[in-house]
Amino acid sequence: KTVRATTEHQHLRYNPLRDTWVLVSAHRMKRPWSGQVEKEEEDQVPQHDPNNPLCPGNTRANGEVNPDYNNTFVFENDFPALQPNAPDPGYNQHPLFQSKAARGVCKVMCFHPWSDVTLPLMTLPDIIKVIDKWAELMVDLGSTYPWVQIFENKGAMMGCSNPHPHCQVWASNFLPNEATLSDRCQREYLKTHGEPLLLQYAKMEAEKQERVVVQNADWLAVVPYWATWPFQTLLLPRRHVQRLTNLTAQEREGLASIMKRLLTKYDNLFQISFPYSMGWHGAPTGPYLKEDQFHWQLHAHYYPPLLRSAGVRKFMVGYEMLAQEQRDLTPEQVIHLGNSITATYAIYKHR
Amino acid sequence: KTVRATTEHQHLRYNPLRDTWVLVSAHRMKRPWSGQVEKEEEDQVPQHDPNNPLCPGNTRANGEVNPDYNNTFVFENDFPALQPNAPDPGYNQHPLFQSKAARGVCKVMCFHPWSDVTLPLMTLPDIIKVIDKWAELMVDLGSTYPWVQIFENKGAMMGCSNPHPHCQVWASNFLPNEATLSDRCQREYLKTHGEPLLLQYAKMEAEKQERVVVQNADWLAVVPYWATWPFQTLLLPRRHVQRLTNLTAQEREGLASIMKRLLTKYDNLFQISFPYSMGWHGAPTGPYLKEDQFHWQLHAHYYPPLLRSAGVRKFMVGYEMLAQEQRDLTPEQVIHLGNSITATYAIYKHR
Ligand SMILES: O=P(O)(O)O[C@H]1O[C@H](CO)[C@@H](O)[C@H](O)[C@H]1O
Ligand SMILES: O=P(O)(O)O[C@H]1O[C@H](CO)[C@@H](O)[C@H](O)[C@H]1O
Repeated sequence: KTVRATTEHQHLRYNPLRDTWVLVSAHRMKRPWSGQVEKEEEDQVPQHDPNNPLCPGNTRANGEVNPDYNNTFVFENDFPALQPNAPDPGYNQHPLFQSKAARGVCKVMCFHPWSDVTLPLMTLPDIIKVIDKWAELMVDLGSTYPWVQIFENKGAMMGCSNPHPHCQVWASNFLPNEATLSDRCQREYLKTHGEPLLLQYAKMEAEKQERVVVQNADWLAVVPYWATWPFQTLLLPRRHVQRLTNLTAQEREGLASIMKRLLTKYDNLFQISFPYSMGWHGAPTGPYLKEDQFHWQLHAHYYPPLLRSAGVRKFMVGYEMLAQEQRDLTPEQVIHLGNSITATYAIYKHR
Repeated sequence: KTVRATTEHQHLRYNPLRDTWVLVSAHRMKRPWSGQVEKEEEDQVPQHDPNNPLCPGNTRANGEVNPDYNNTFVFENDFPALQPNAPDPGYNQHPLFQSKAARGVCKVMCFHPWSDVTLPLMTLPDIIKVIDKWAELMVDLGSTYPWVQIFENKGAMMGCSNPHPHCQVWASNFLPNEATLSDRCQREYLKTHGEPLLLQYAKMEAEKQERVVVQNADWLAVVPYWATWPFQTLLLPRRHVQRLTNLTAQEREGLASIMKRLLTKYDNLFQISFPYSMGWHGAPTGPYLKEDQFHWQLHAHYYPPLLRSAGVRKFMVGYEMLAQEQRDLTPEQVIHLGNSITATYAIYKHR
């Protein structure tokens, strides 16, 4: 009865990482769609484009010439949202007109010298180089900045303006909203339940095997019980790991492997280069390196926008912006849909 | 010095209605854009389309025939995210796997019998009929449901799948996340500062005249100090009004007039039918009707997605989803940009 109920009616699910609820309307996939259809991504990206500022050997907006790099390449964003030297906006403010100084740095990290690959199409050794570089940046920027946000916007639909495989790293002198919220939720969970939230969650999902997409000895990728985006996933280590920098060599290999499988599965689902925004959350850094962060468990969020096909996305609009996030199928229905999709080789041959 | 600072560097601003911060990076409008460009909206919408289920006299998905309506028309959404009879998902749950029953009703409200008009192109008497119908629905649904969310998704870019002018009304047996958050913030503000948050805010913005877009005797539309979307606005009554149902006849007239002017200004900005999601927030209803809700002030949020032109939108993606919302120009820069745009007649002639 409960199973029937959750596939034919709506219910609410609690997101313990954000202390919010999501409205799960299982029956809504039956709705016909006559709205916006996304245009196909341009599939003709050359391996090397002499005009692309992210390719090896090319000149960027500020006149600098990229080296002839072989694997990853990191440079300062030429149009950074965060600069190191911003002045303080002022003091003695009214509670309704509060501002604060924000300082930081924005970097861009190319994954590979070729423009026509993506993470799932790269070799494991090349993906490991990406992970090592992530950890290196966390050490460097995390030595002073309290929060270092590594994130990838993939696909034009997710605001990505350059097809070359890359991610961004924005470090700030403040804890962003999402970091503050996740910190509070994990801290309170440990206090109340005696175990780190996501460590316990990973164990339970590994046992249940109801929402697992891919797994290996050290990692687990699940559609979280409280997923908001239709094909949202949460990537979790099995061991208690607080930061990317704490991963062992074996865990980095396992991470490269599970990322490749997860992203291959995404690409194969609708046979396109699957768009998403993803990013890492781990214990805060800088001054927090000296504090107890036992409540934190490292994890990555994948937020893909598609709902039904390569062309039909989920719109998080009116009700979602003004009232509450809403999804049109249950996480368990997603697992059912995805069961027949292979993670081991690319059906969709990128370009 | 402070003025120079805030147009050439980033800073943070506090949103007192959501207890969050927004990263304001004034200098980022200089960034070139080579990403996704939105396609133009189809401009050839006939006044009456025999196949459009929202037009008068047509048959909807469930076989019902629409009346030959003259102004507004309300019907039950044929694919509702909220149904009145959903079963309880179960009891005795683990803290990481919590679900709750959700019950409610979803209605669609057509603004006008013609498909080729929008609110800013309608006459004041016809807009007043929309406002009266909103208030009527608030009375009906609000008699039992604690939250009645009135919202409009306008434009394909905002997930709207039917060009006929309409909004939606979703009533639920729970307070959605955004309602809970706004309730808490307004309640705490009253307690600490002795005056309703938005009442004080409207007074101060009316005095400062730094972020006012349009105003009249009873209403004020501002780009809030903490705006997230580039052209976001907040519509506020000058008097302390807790719910749509409490508006006097004169205030409804004033509301029709200011809405028409605000939306005309939006359309004229990029000379298109401006896309947005908007919605009303007021004191909760149902069981809350008997409680003190003095901290609440009625208001409408307008969240438009565009950034630079009819084709270039702001993407709230990687950093925004995983860390914190970020904007590329200050609210004061928006006012400056908008100063030369008329609110009194449509430069952009819709269709
Ligand atoms: O109900 P509609 O207009 O078909 O659907 C639209 O608005 C809903 C409420 O904001 C969203 O959940 C949908 O994703 C969107 O496409
Ligand atoms: O920096 P990019 O890739 O040009 O820009 C993209 O990612 C940023 C960070 O999520 C967003 O603020 C932008 O709206 C988006 O277009």
